This record gives sequence, C-alpha cells and structure tokens, in this order.
Amino acid sequence: MTFEETTGSVLTPEAQVALDRATGSAHRHHELLSDRAFHIKQSAVRDVFDISIRPGLISLAGGSPYLQSLPLDGLADAAAAIIRTQGLAALQYGPGQGLQELRELACEVMAAEGITGADPEDVVITTGSQSGQDVAAKVFCNPGDVVLCEDPTYVGALNAFEAYEVDMQPVPMDAYGLIPEALEERIQSLKAAGKRVKMLYTIPSFNNPSGVTLSADRRDEVVRICRENNILVLEDNPYGLLRFDGEPLTPLRAAHPEDVLYLGSFSKIFAPGLRLGWALVPKHLFRRFYLACEAVLLCPSPLTQMITAAYLRDFDWMGRIRDSRRLYADRCAAMLSALEDQMPDGVTWTVPDGGFFVWVSLPEGIDTYPLLTEAIEAGTVFIPGAAFTPGDEPSSRLRLAFSAVSPDDIREGVRRLAPVIRRAVGDG
Amino acid sequence: MTFEETTGSVLTPEAQVALDRATGSAHRHHELLSDRAFHIKQSAVRDVFDISIRPGLISLAGGSPYLQSLPLDGLADAAAAIIRTQGLAALQYGPGQGLQELRELACEVMAAEGITGADPEDVVITTGSQSGQDVAAKVFCNPGDVVLCEDPTYVGALNAFEAYEVDMQPVPMDAYGLIPEALEERIQSLKAAGKRVKMLYTIPSFNNPSGVTLSADRRDEVVRICRENNILVLEDNPYGLLRFDGEPLTPLRAAHPEDVLYLGSFSKIFAPGLRLGWALVPKHLFRRFYLACEAVLLCPSPLTQMITAAYLRDFDWMGRIRDSRRLYADRCAAMLSALEDQMPDGVTWTVPDGGFFVWVSLPEGIDTYPLLTEAIEAGTVFIPGAAFTPGDEPSSRLRLAFSAVSPDDIREGVRRLAPVIRRAVGDG
Repeated sequence: MTFEETTGSVLTPEAQVALDRATGSAHRHHELLSDRAFHIKQSAVRDVFDISIRPGLISLAGGSPYLQSLPLDGLADAAAAIIRTQGLAALQYGPGQGLQELRELACEVMAAEGITGADPEDVVITTGSQSGQDVAAKVFCNPGDVVLCEDPTYVGALNAFEAYEVDMQPVPMDAYGLIPEALEERIQSLKAAGKRVKMLYTIPSFNNPSGVTLSADRRDEVVRICRENNILVLEDNPYGLLRFDGEPLTPLRAAHPEDVLYLGSFSKIFAPGLRLGWALVPKHLFRRFYLACEAVLLCPSPLTQMITAAYLRDFDWMGRIRDSRRLYADRCAAMLSALEDQMPDGVTWTVPDGGFFVWVSLPEGIDTYPLLTEAIEAGTVFIPGAAFTPGDEPSSRLRLAFSAVSPDDIREGVRRLAPVIRRAVGDG
Repeated sequence: MTFEETTGSVLTPEAQVALDRATGSAHRHHELLSDRAFHIKQSAVRDVFDISIRPGLISLAGGSPYLQSLPLDGLADAAAAIIRTQGLAALQYGPGQGLQELRELACEVMAAEGITGADPEDVVITTGSQSGQDVAAKVFCNPGDVVLCEDPTYVGALNAFEAYEVDMQPVPMDAYGLIPEALEERIQSLKAAGKRVKMLYTIPSFNNPSGVTLSADRRDEVVRICRENNILVLEDNPYGLLRFDGEPLTPLRAAHPEDVLYLGSFSKIFAPGLRLGWALVPKHLFRRFYLACEAVLLCPSPLTQMITAAYLRDFDWMGRIRDSRRLYADRCAAMLSALEDQMPDGVTWTVPDGGFFVWVSLPEGIDTYPLLTEAIEAGTVFIPGAAFTPGDEPSSRLRLAFSAVSPDDIREGVRRLAPVIRRAVGDG
C-alpha cells in the first residue's frame, strides 16, 4: 500500500472524537485551532498501514505505479552527472515557476495526449498533482463554496479541498463517466439553494477509484455546461497516457484553454518519489495561481526537476509507457478474470480501459469498512469505498488496485478476499 | 538573487490594480477567486529579478547560502548509489511523516543547537520551512486572526500567513531582539480590541532581514508571555547554527516543548535545492499538524530525503558548518567595514552575530523602493525594507545580504550603492 491513500476519513465520528481526546483536545491550545483544522481528516488507511505491509499480505489497496522497469543504472548516472557538473544550480534555490526545460518537456508530454500548443509560460511546476489541488482550493474557494466532483473521486483531492472548508458535491457517473444531465441538474439545484459553485474537479480518464473514463462525446458537453454556469474545470489527469489500447482520449483542456485548469503529474509516467507535477493554467488566471504556489513552497526542487528533465530528454520514456500499458492491461485482465471466477452473485465491478483501479460494488446496505479487518486476517487488503465520497456515510463499494501487484498475486489476493465478500453478501 | 525573496509586496497598490487588469480581472473567472487570493501578493523583487542576474551586476539582494564548499563529487556518488541500490524505494511514494532516518538525524541537528531529547515521532519532514509556515497558518488561523511577528520579519512568512487572511501584527525589536514589554503591551491592546491572537512567529537567531538575535536572557520571558496569553510560539530557526563565534544560543523550543512549534531547515546547513526542512511539533498538536501536511503534499520526496540523510550521516556536515561560519563572518565583516567607509551620516545598520543579512536604516521619510532602480543602474541590487513589514507603508530601511557574494564583490557592491544612498540622504 502506498501513502497516496492515507488522507480520507474512515474513522467513525465517535472514534475521531476519542482520538481527539487522547491527542490533546483537552489542551489549552485546542482553542487555537482554525475552523478548517477540524475538516482535515484522519487517514483512510493509516490505521491499517502497518498491518498492510506485513510479510505475506497481498495489498490490493495501494495505487503505486510499477517502477521495476525504470532504468535505475542510467538514472543513477544521470543524477550523479547533474550533481557533479551542475550541482551549484541543482542544490540552490531555483525559479518559483519551475525550470524552463521541464516546463517545455511538460508541454511535450501534454502534446502526446492531444493538448497541442501549450505555452511553457503558462505552466507551473508543482510538487505533485495533490499540491496543485491544494493551491486551486486556496485560490478559488471560500469556506462553504461548492466544488463538484465525480462520485466517487480521489480521496486526496477530497481532503485537499475539505481542508479549506469546501463543500464537495458529488455528481453521479455511469459507465461513460459524469452524466451531463446530472451535472446540469446538480448545478441548478445548488444554485437554487443559494450555493456558490466554483469548480468541477474531475479525473476524466481512468478515474481514481472507479477506473471509469468520461467518453469522448461527453467531454465537450461537460465543459460547455461548466462554462455556461461560470464554473472552472479542474482537470486532473495523472493516468491519461496509461490507456491499455488505442490512443489516449483528448483531455478536456485541449479544446478549452480558457475554461480548464489542467493538472499533470510525473508520478505515473516517471516516478512518484520525485514529487513533481505541473499545472497548465489559463492565462487570465496564471498570475494568481503562480503567486499562491510560491507562497506555499518558494520553488520546487531544482535537483528533482533536473533529474526528471534528464529522464524525459535522454531516455525512451514513451517506450517505457508503451510497455507499462501492456503490463497494466495484463494485471487488470488478471483482476477481472479473478473477480469473475471468485465473486458471488450480486457483486459487480467496473471494467476500466486504463489506469490502476477496479471499483467493486456489493449489494446496497453492506458496509465495506468492517470487512477490512476480515480481509487483513485473510491476508489481503483493499480501500473501503467510503473514503472516496464526501461525508461519513457507509459505502457498499471498495477499491482494488492492480498496478503494483503481479498477476499471480492479484489472483491470490482476490481468492483470499472472496470468502470475506461471500460471507458479507450472505453467500458464504 | 535567489527566489527566497520573491513573495512580498513592493508593487504600489495602483500598480497591483493595473497588473490585475492586464492579467484577467475583467475575465468572468475573476469572480471565482477566493477572498484570500487577493491577499496573495506580487513578488517583492520579481520585477527586478531578470535585471538582477544580468552579467556584471553585484547582487546584495539574495539570501542564498554558500554552496561551493559542498562535496559535489561525494554527493554525486551518494545519490547514484541510492538510486542504484534503493531506487525502487527512493522513487516510489514514501511515508507522509518523512523517513524515520531523516527524522532521527533532524533530532541530532537540533541537539547540536541545544534541543535535547526531541522525539523523532514528533517530527514531520516538510518541503522547507516555508511549507511549515503555510501548514501552521492553515491549522491555526481563521481569517482575521492575529499572528504576531518581529518588525521586520521574513517576507516569505508574511506571504504564507497573509494567504490565509491572517492579520500580521509586528512587534518592535531593539538590538537584543523582541522587546518583552512591547510584546506584552501589543498582546493586551490587541485583546482589548477584541482580536484573537493565535501565534507569535519569530526568527530569534539572526532574524531575516535584520540579522538581530533575541538575547539569551529574553528568551524565556518571551515564551512565558506567550504561554500566559495562550499564544503558541512558532520558532523559525534556519540560521541558528550559523553563529559567527561561540556556541549557538539555545532555541526557545529547548526548555518549552509544549509551548513552541519549531521549524528547522536543511537549506542553510546543507542545500536549499533539496527543498527539505522539518517541524518539531508539541505532542498534543502533532496529529492536526501532520494531517494538514499530508493533505497538502501526500509525502516529501524519498529521494531528496535519502540524499540529505546520506549527507548528514556520511559526510562531515558539522565541519563544513564550522568553515561556513568563518566564511560568513568574513563576508559580514567586509560588508560592515564597507558600510563604515561608504555610507553618509544619518545612515545606520545592524551588526549581526550570525546569519546572512545586514539591515540598513536611512533617515525617516526616505522610501527605499524608488532607490532600487537607481541601484540597479549603478550595478547592484538590494531588497527594499517595505517587503519585510505587513501593510503597504513605504520604508526607509533596506536589506543587504552578504552570504552569496565574495568580500571583494561586497566591497564593490557597497561602493556602487553608496552614491545612490548619499543622493537620497541629500549628502550626494
């Protein structure tokens, strides 16, 4: 399991209060906490993390990318050469916007997905897409403002936004992603209720956690609905290039440079340990966004930027992505066939075209959170669905990740999970 | 000039409005901006940055540490070995709190300054002290809450806090740092005015920009005053080990583990380009602070953490600090003697015991901001004093940095600056 998943709420409200009490709510400094501090939630899986890395356990929880195919020797040499020959720049403060070369390379990455003509001047290097979400919340959201999101959506984004007391409002999806009619209806009903809707946060390609992709024919319509309601689209696209077959779908940003603030990430196409991503910001919003990035961080690390630039410049990064797509496709297929073999009637799941995740639905009324303990006892682990939706309602869904586990382990993990699910469904 | 200084306001309000207009305030998305977005200011020196790096110009503006003494070959080998042998961990997601080894090493660094017995469990690795300020503002400050600070104080902290609509209230200093009576008086008058005072942000050793140090006999009193008024102390101590002579003064945190949230930085004792620092958090506040860090960033870069840990573990970092202290002392002496030689009557300056900066005071009524253009024409650059105080008042002060410039260049830079100052003082 990685730590990408550690920022949603799965503690019950009672447990949260008990934890507060144990960790200082009785202390005189408790009254110094900001209102927003109470919206920053306990980790979704922090409480199972130590367990989940124990030997022998097969984790289907973490969305870690497959790194074994990285050219480690070549990267080691590249990093050494950077420090040896450009060390005084790599180890010093750098520009707040990020290095020119890496901003240009980010534009090349975007071009590979169909965003052509992006201007490196409109790019800010971030410390990962998560920090882009944090800055977007800071720049656009007052307490109580609404940000629309897919239902389900990325747990880290929920936590980044809720830390600014944003009212996250989920919009239903079907197998083709966000439902435009549902989006329009939700906007109108929120407006009628006097709410201020600021943004749509969307992961249109291979949504985390559901694996669902917004179909090509809905993409313009989603942006049009937002534009007509003066809502900014925040497009988070870490997985876009990881489509199993065929060409990547063109991001929303491509045809709508004024309406979409685009977040890219080097975590899935290169490596998450560098902690780098980028934002492509509409020109009229660039200055505000950029200044907020600088206020949080001063500047991203020149060293990790130079290493990332060297990787994209001197290595066959696109070839490795092609290989990764096949590898993830095989793993996904292994998971789907294991689910087919093992899951009882009444359990359904998504069939993703890319990305890292399958979203499993149990019959309504079953809460998947208590099943986590049983799953761990059975030797596997997943993320309960409640983490991926605002609010504290129980969920009958769960997320399985296939990205970081071999096909054999995927099959074994699902085999271990199956009896837990069967018992819950009453089919055990 | 580095970019550490690029986050304060020196644009006039009129220029700010004009810039807004030119960069999109007429756009329909303008109304989507949060209230706090309007508190995130234009860079202090962004407008002179391009000029300041032009060949031949001597910059006395930037607080960059001296890196030429770093063992670049050794660091290159260390980084290569980390990627080659631990690459799959270094390049993957890591723990949100930071690596255990680096948290232990941070405790060793703190012990060298007099904070003994710090528990690595209470340490969170940050992406630099600036991000620690951002998270502290997020966790403790509602809009309108007061944070007290030294007058003058670090421009980046002003911007980090003001991005949360914090009311930054400066407290007078003298040559021995914050004046306890003035602190008490300011607190009482703010309370009487119905203000909520949450924190004291302080750089007690070699304050940026003034170079002034809070004397040992005032340290306990400052904490006592804050404790009695239920105000948390946020101690920012990037320069503490860089005292020219004698032992470092014991940080406020040492004797007051419950009352002080301590921010450390690897930027000045190692290198800023890794973008790493740490927070030592009182146990009763740890969980809130840690969760907020994670919501912003997920995790700091394992790669840069491992490189930093290798530097602190395998190299003579303390020996290099000893050498750096002598080097900075020589540069400071060169600056003080150049000022003595060149400055007209009526101009005074601080005499720091460590750190990177000298703070120059012109007679009241002279605004140093317009002098910047003249200085650049004369071939040098400084930071106008207004950047280091909340609000938009003109300032008769300016900051000179000696850390990144050779003694000869310091003398030449001051020689170039002197006629500008003399003209302003009417002594030209």
